[in-house]
Amino acid sequence: MREALRGNAVEELFGTIEGYGRASDIVDAAHGADVPVWPVTDQGLASLTETVTPQGLVAVCRHRHHSDLAHSLAGQPRLVVVLAGISDPGNAGTVLRTADAAGATVVVFPEGSVDPYNGKCVRASAGSLFHVDLVRGGSAETAVTALRAAGMAVLAAEAHGDIDLDDYADDGGLDARTAWLFGSEAHGLAPELAALADARLMVPIHGRAESLNLAAAAAVCLYASARAHRRPGAPP
Amino acid sequence: MREALRGNAVEELFGTIEGYGRASDIVDAAHGADVPVWPVTDQGLASLTETVTPQGLVAVCRHRHHSDLAHSLAGQPRLVVVLAGISDPGNAGTVLRTADAAGATVVVFPEGSVDPYNGKCVRASAGSLFHVDLVRGGSAETAVTALRAAGMAVLAAEAHGDIDLDDYADDGGLDARTAWLFGSEAHGLAPELAALADARLMVPIHGRAESLNLAAAAAVCLYASARAHRRPGAPP
Repeated sequence: MREALRGNAVEELFGTIEGYGRASDIVDAAHGADVPVWPVTDQGLASLTETVTPQGLVAVCRHRHHSDLAHSLAGQPRLVVVLAGISDPGNAGTVLRTADAAGATVVVFPEGSVDPYNGKCVRASAGSLFHVDLVRGGSAETAVTALRAAGMAVLAAEAHGDIDLDDYADDGGLDARTAWLFGSEAHGLAPELAALADARLMVPIHGRAESLNLAAAAAVCLYASARAHRRPGAPP
Repeated sequence: MREALRGNAVEELFGTIEGYGRASDIVDAAHGADVPVWPVTDQGLASLTETVTPQGLVAVCRHRHHSDLAHSLAGQPRLVVVLAGISDPGNAGTVLRTADAAGATVVVFPEGSVDPYNGKCVRASAGSLFHVDLVRGGSAETAVTALRAAGMAVLAAEAHGDIDLDDYADDGGLDARTAWLFGSEAHGLAPELAALADARLMVPIHGRAESLNLAAAAAVCLYASARAHRRPGAPP
């Protein structure tokens, strides 16, 4: 909620006396930002939220996405994430948080992906929903075309990709400005979408696990990019 | 369940006609391993499981942990994971799966950590519970002493650790045989435990996220170790 206020996304704040008492900094910030603050009863609060044990405050936030990927790419981002067909909101939120932590500044939810404003996604993102440039809509294929037109490498993360992530990093493949495509937990990326990428990479499996879960694989891929971008001598 | 059968951990198998029909390879494997296979009704199956939509088969498995860490360390593992105070079973299972994928062969659940046989942990581990050498019990402090006595580097993963993981890797700090300590989702590692480690490392945050979630941080740390262990010229 602090992140939403900092991101200028809060329209109204509702809270119980106890909720306000526990988070007076939030109330102060809301007053400072001319956000209306309304007192409600416990029952009133419960009717406003889907969580079982609400924390005493509910913020009504503006949607803050747009659908103009080309505009986002004009800023020459170094790291972009495309969530193509991710259906689990908790996973989507976790990947959003990890993307933000790894320095990705643009996150794309194409048609067919989960609603980023789903409560589970918002909570799992731990505020990162309000940090990144959020692009919604359009097909994933159109996004790939725009990403490539903007001079970015487009990499597909696949459990059975044909190139080892570490080898690709060693060969300098992660030095370029990069957009990562991550697919659904159950089915991965659609083959026709993966085929559009410059390369299909897999996180190597050294033990006996069959695969990583989506959020873990995304963490390894995105931090490999972050490391390649930040090592001495990396291209700007 | 296939992993449990491969790991010789299944004592009995219960299933509905439909469940057996959908997974005849499992039934064949059970017969081949002299595991008793019992037919049950849908209601009977439901009474055996805590999942809302059981998949038609329930395996009764032997506990497969032991409590003799020194015995596990005699095998000179290169990568060990200690889950110290992790309370969320889904997180624990995900870290188990990631540890297995990254090549960790020993996973320690000291006293005070979640039950690895919790259903959510088992499911999130996606079979890795049956792949790794599972050690339970004893204090985390005792485990650190044993790990160091076995010649391993002991590294604490902390959201606000004082050394950047990438810098530590660049300086060769991850080349040694390593045990990682991961703490609770909410509170991290107990300070007195973290103080026992050789170093307290943080995954660098490049964007505006405050931190990574536990499973994502563990994935980045463990794959950094895996990479250091496998690069050309790494010590055996």
